[in-house]
Amino acid sequence: MKKLAIFTVLSLAVSTAHAAPQNPLIIEQQGSFAIGGIVKTSEGKYNSRPEMTQTKTSNEFMDVYKVNITNGGQTLHGDHATVSYQIPSNVKSLPLVFLHGAGQSMRTWQTTPDGREGWNTLFLRKNYAIYLVDQPRRGWSGRSTVDGSIPAIPDDQFWFAQFRMGEYPHFFKGVAFPQDAASLDQFFRQMTPNTGPFDASVISNSLKALFDRIGNGVLVTHSQGGSPGWLTGIKVPEKVKGIVAIEPGNFPFLEGEVPPIVESAYGNITADSVKKADFDKLTKMPIIIYFGDNIAEEPSKIQGEDQWRIRLLLAKKWAEVVNKHGGDVQVVHLPDVGIKGNTHFMMQDLNSAEVAEHLDGWLKEKGLSN
Amino acid sequence: MKKLAIFTVLSLAVSTAHAAPQNPLIIEQQGSFAIGGIVKTSEGKYNSRPEMTQTKTSNEFMDVYKVNITNGGQTLHGDHATVSYQIPSNVKSLPLVFLHGAGQSMRTWQTTPDGREGWNTLFLRKNYAIYLVDQPRRGWSGRSTVDGSIPAIPDDQFWFAQFRMGEYPHFFKGVAFPQDAASLDQFFRQMTPNTGPFDASVISNSLKALFDRIGNGVLVTHSQGGSPGWLTGIKVPEKVKGIVAIEPGNFPFLEGEVPPIVESAYGNITADSVKKADFDKLTKMPIIIYFGDNIAEEPSKIQGEDQWRIRLLLAKKWAEVVNKHGGDVQVVHLPDVGIKGNTHFMMQDLNSAEVAEHLDGWLKEKGLSN
Repeated sequence: MKKLAIFTVLSLAVSTAHAAPQNPLIIEQQGSFAIGGIVKTSEGKYNSRPEMTQTKTSNEFMDVYKVNITNGGQTLHGDHATVSYQIPSNVKSLPLVFLHGAGQSMRTWQTTPDGREGWNTLFLRKNYAIYLVDQPRRGWSGRSTVDGSIPAIPDDQFWFAQFRMGEYPHFFKGVAFPQDAASLDQFFRQMTPNTGPFDASVISNSLKALFDRIGNGVLVTHSQGGSPGWLTGIKVPEKVKGIVAIEPGNFPFLEGEVPPIVESAYGNITADSVKKADFDKLTKMPIIIYFGDNIAEEPSKIQGEDQWRIRLLLAKKWAEVVNKHGGDVQVVHLPDVGIKGNTHFMMQDLNSAEVAEHLDGWLKEKGLSN
Repeated sequence: MKKLAIFTVLSLAVSTAHAAPQNPLIIEQQGSFAIGGIVKTSEGKYNSRPEMTQTKTSNEFMDVYKVNITNGGQTLHGDHATVSYQIPSNVKSLPLVFLHGAGQSMRTWQTTPDGREGWNTLFLRKNYAIYLVDQPRRGWSGRSTVDGSIPAIPDDQFWFAQFRMGEYPHFFKGVAFPQDAASLDQFFRQMTPNTGPFDASVISNSLKALFDRIGNGVLVTHSQGGSPGWLTGIKVPEKVKGIVAIEPGNFPFLEGEVPPIVESAYGNITADSVKKADFDKLTKMPIIIYFGDNIAEEPSKIQGEDQWRIRLLLAKKWAEVVNKHGGDVQVVHLPDVGIKGNTHFMMQDLNSAEVAEHLDGWLKEKGLSN
């Protein structure tokens, strides 16, 4: 009976991917822009006609480039975020701003690995304006003011484990992730590296600039995006009207109320902390935190099960602390509400539309969907 | 009088950027996917439960990551392109596939630096299906199978010169690029670096895979994208029904008919060459090559004027050679058809819609717009 149920879920997913076209999207405006960032300037004075020396066999513009970058007084515009937006017809008043997690870009929120519509399009269909972010030093926002290096190290299996698809090469039983080779290939190719050091402060500065530009909205973060997300809530609390955190990695506890290190065989977590004035800002907005399935209750030898065990534990502790101080934080462990099999990428799983419905319900309940 | 004319152009541009909304876009389908690429595998056998050693003070998942990447038998899915597509209502039969140039991503084709609609949206409004590409090792396609390094070197002024905005800090007189500080800031922030070595063969492999997936289409390249574009035409000539090259950097001459090195104080060009069987493929499809304004006729001391002088020269020679062998190559030097002031980024210049109209006319003339 259990097997049959899983089979049905998979069949539904495949038929969705190849379903007859839905109603067309009516888009009032779409585009992209850079936001935030700084300017780094080299010493010296720029000379637009530098001394050039070249041999007759030199080739292409990289030679002139090499001469020219030793030419001082130049600028580097970097550390900005890049934003892609779509405004549908009959738009709701609060847009959704989506920030990806580690190793990802705004692709996280787009087409699923098996070709279904991503959350960007699902929420457009619900008449939310959508702002997708590539954080500073990732994807389209590759210009970093700090040097970066990108070693080409095979590590897909690490991510397969960490993202809770299963224990490679085996998927977890009943996992809500498409298990065909083509989908997994697409999933791995969705990853894209840091072009400079990850910096939650730099990222939250760019998100602050984004909210300053677009006004009030709801911030949706995934995984590593959680920490810059909390910082953004602290930096522009008057404009961040709600935070949705999908399996965030850490939580800003109030100084003095930080729990001890949470231990896991696969890497401990030291909880983050912030000062009272900052902590209080996060008590002023509704917050929902989602966790998926296959998260252990007791220490487990399986990487994904154990890594998210300690984070779910911390999430629950954080919610207690924030709510004790007057906040409104809800932790939703999806299996507890009957949504099963989710990986770390619930916005791409086979039941991604069901998770989206749950989130939409929360947005409505909190008055963020008008 | 001339000054007045320029003022009028600028005013128009600003008013366009803030114009009353146009008709909404009707989008039948949109999404993104990875295409092409290879898999690199590390030696050894993957162990999903590696020996972990950590201190109590270790923190966050980067520790477990460091242990795990020494764990062999892992894969890296890399060197793919990433594609973002939109299919409008009443779609024409041939889609347009857009490939960016050096230091750019698909952002090249999106919103202009001063906030007007990019060519992606302008051509959607003309009912073309649009496929925007981030080439392998750039933007969203950051996973490279070869190590990369990204030094944070200030070089905006080099690009300002190379992209023919002017001689920094001065814009060329009458240049069709918005001259306010905010637009230039947006333009610089549109750049994003290579995450691995530029490789025209890797890029054209991914474009071949794209045409194999979507079928017949027209390829539009910009600048450094020119060379992988020609290679794509050679690799899938039956599906590339036309090539539009915006200021390409080089041209594949027929072996034995390669012109001598073209000299410029800012870097010579050695013309590319290909074998007869490959060259012949490019004689089977219509090709149009666009060059903008402020390109010198005689050697110039100004970088941009001189660098594009030698490339325009080479383009004209290449067109002669291809046409002599039965091809259909047209070189359009925009000032010759009354379109003035264009930089290297004619798809973003103040008159970008006018250039788009010219291109649309060519597509119609060649039967590529049905």
